[in-house]
Amino acid sequence: MGILMFRKIIAFSLCTLLSVQIAVAFDYLQPLPDEPIAPKDNPVTPEKADLGKRLFFDQRLSWNGDVSCNTCHQLAAGGDDGGAVTQLPGREIKRSAPSVWNVAYMSTYFWDARATSLESQVMEHLVDPNIMAMRHNTNVVKRLQAIPGYRELFKTAFGNDAITIDNIAQAIATFQRTLIVPDSRFDQFIKGNEAALNAKEKRGLQLFNDKGCLSCHFGTNFAGPAPGPALKMGDGFYELFPNYRGSLYEDKFDFVADLGRYHVTLNPEHKLMWRVPSLRNITDTAPYFHNGSVYDLHQAVRIMSEVQFNYPITDEEVDDIVAFLKTLTGKYPEITMPRLPDTPGVSLLP
Amino acid sequence: MGILMFRKIIAFSLCTLLSVQIAVAFDYLQPLPDEPIAPKDNPVTPEKADLGKRLFFDQRLSWNGDVSCNTCHQLAAGGDDGGAVTQLPGREIKRSAPSVWNVAYMSTYFWDARATSLESQVMEHLVDPNIMAMRHNTNVVKRLQAIPGYRELFKTAFGNDAITIDNIAQAIATFQRTLIVPDSRFDQFIKGNEAALNAKEKRGLQLFNDKGCLSCHFGTNFAGPAPGPALKMGDGFYELFPNYRGSLYEDKFDFVADLGRYHVTLNPEHKLMWRVPSLRNITDTAPYFHNGSVYDLHQAVRIMSEVQFNYPITDEEVDDIVAFLKTLTGKYPEITMPRLPDTPGVSLLP
Repeated sequence: MGILMFRKIIAFSLCTLLSVQIAVAFDYLQPLPDEPIAPKDNPVTPEKADLGKRLFFDQRLSWNGDVSCNTCHQLAAGGDDGGAVTQLPGREIKRSAPSVWNVAYMSTYFWDARATSLESQVMEHLVDPNIMAMRHNTNVVKRLQAIPGYRELFKTAFGNDAITIDNIAQAIATFQRTLIVPDSRFDQFIKGNEAALNAKEKRGLQLFNDKGCLSCHFGTNFAGPAPGPALKMGDGFYELFPNYRGSLYEDKFDFVADLGRYHVTLNPEHKLMWRVPSLRNITDTAPYFHNGSVYDLHQAVRIMSEVQFNYPITDEEVDDIVAFLKTLTGKYPEITMPRLPDTPGVSLLP
Repeated sequence: MGILMFRKIIAFSLCTLLSVQIAVAFDYLQPLPDEPIAPKDNPVTPEKADLGKRLFFDQRLSWNGDVSCNTCHQLAAGGDDGGAVTQLPGREIKRSAPSVWNVAYMSTYFWDARATSLESQVMEHLVDPNIMAMRHNTNVVKRLQAIPGYRELFKTAFGNDAITIDNIAQAIATFQRTLIVPDSRFDQFIKGNEAALNAKEKRGLQLFNDKGCLSCHFGTNFAGPAPGPALKMGDGFYELFPNYRGSLYEDKFDFVADLGRYHVTLNPEHKLMWRVPSLRNITDTAPYFHNGSVYDLHQAVRIMSEVQFNYPITDEEVDDIVAFLKTLTGKYPEITMPRLPDTPGVSLLP
């Protein structure tokens, strides 16, 4: 059944060839690696991570100064904002904020997969009129250049005090590469500790495989391929949702009002194509789906079974899969709040 | 001149008798005490402070889950949000967020002085439809009762797992009593280190006294009396602004559109009465005034001289006073971000 479903899924996918290649190149189940891969031109350094952390918490990176990265991607919680669709004053966000934890193991960013590197998603967030709303890279650079402390921090991190949009993106991406939540019970299990999962959780894992969930939710983050040799940089990875149309859930949860990747490419074949969301720490990222319309993980699992596979699922099976998914929550690292460089006696905001 | 101005100010104040009493009971200039006074029924404990810190960062304390205390009172920065007037979706805030740092040394909360204890201001913030928007204490209690981890934390902090609005307010107030920024150069100076201020800064302090600024900006926070025996709990402390009407600044910065305390009491004598804002860490809390309309500290000082005292001030005098005010910025403590208790696989938000 797993194979049948897998083939059905990839038949609907634009990434058919890619997916087959991945099936060969990747183990379906992987523990979290010790460190994510960083691009050759942006190796992780403590200085860049420190600068990136300050930028991550700095509301001055938004036009009105009303939000920082941490507003919607909260490091005190699941790396999201816990709501369906983020409401920001004067802006219109249509999709639910995904988690920033373990984001270094994604190959594809935004629900519509419009960015394929951490660095480029930073830049997109900054200028997007509905997110940080800086509208143009120049505005970002000017804002930071006016804060004396940042010039020193960029010098320490990059060797000169030229504050550029590339350096800003590299610093924030570097900090994001440190946001790893290791040592979930699943990781302990897959590394060989059989006792890390109980019988119910193991049944859930078996069902997760047998039902076909793994055909999309595979790899480090259960979200498809991680950046690396198996996925050519820039290719992206996305799948169709809902796979079967006309379910009772479709109207109830308004699943097809937003056409996903189609809005980026205007390619009709990209209608309802979405990035595959990570399942790591999934217990801490409710509500679920691109529009955050489903508030309970049990219901999310049932919906996936019915709209992706058109296949009934029993309450007990749902319960077992949820028990397994709960083992994907790891140990969050302690984060010390940064101090943001000041502009004594002056505000830079409009 | 100082005395004359002082008498003029208190002649406009509803707190005349109180102010005179304070002038006797308080030293005008005080270093930051080691610890703030806490109410007898809410002594500071590490357990309450830990719980309060989590609540301070928890967006689930707002109705839509879109803001926490830290959204507008950022501990990574000056304890405010750096903007003129906070914009929150679906709400209308008319005043600039004041700093939460050293707030334990204020006797009066909100710009309109409508709360006179840290505990009661917490409760006001939670239910205010334009701030946390929980609308009723019951909603706050219900929200937290649904988060299993909080029951345990309340038990540890208060001895039983009854989550009540009083305990919630006491915990957050306790955390706020730990948000102290000590050891400014002014504190070093007033404790006896003459060399902590340079000649320009000392001239600024002398001018600050001579011009009459101290008549309102006295005490621990340069904001009037701190809680304690000199100010009866519940009395509040507020002053008139603008003191002289019809200045060129009044229209330019829209100073009299908001009538301040009058909106709370509907007492015509409370028109344009305001809490005296703290001057500690003033370099990090631009923009200034109740409506955040003034973006530069130099301009704020000039305006205060002209609209409170109707008295010209030279550029050099402004510069000296600003130099003195910059010595009021202390050493911010390091804050470790809390982990917020989760509701695995479920979202509590509407």
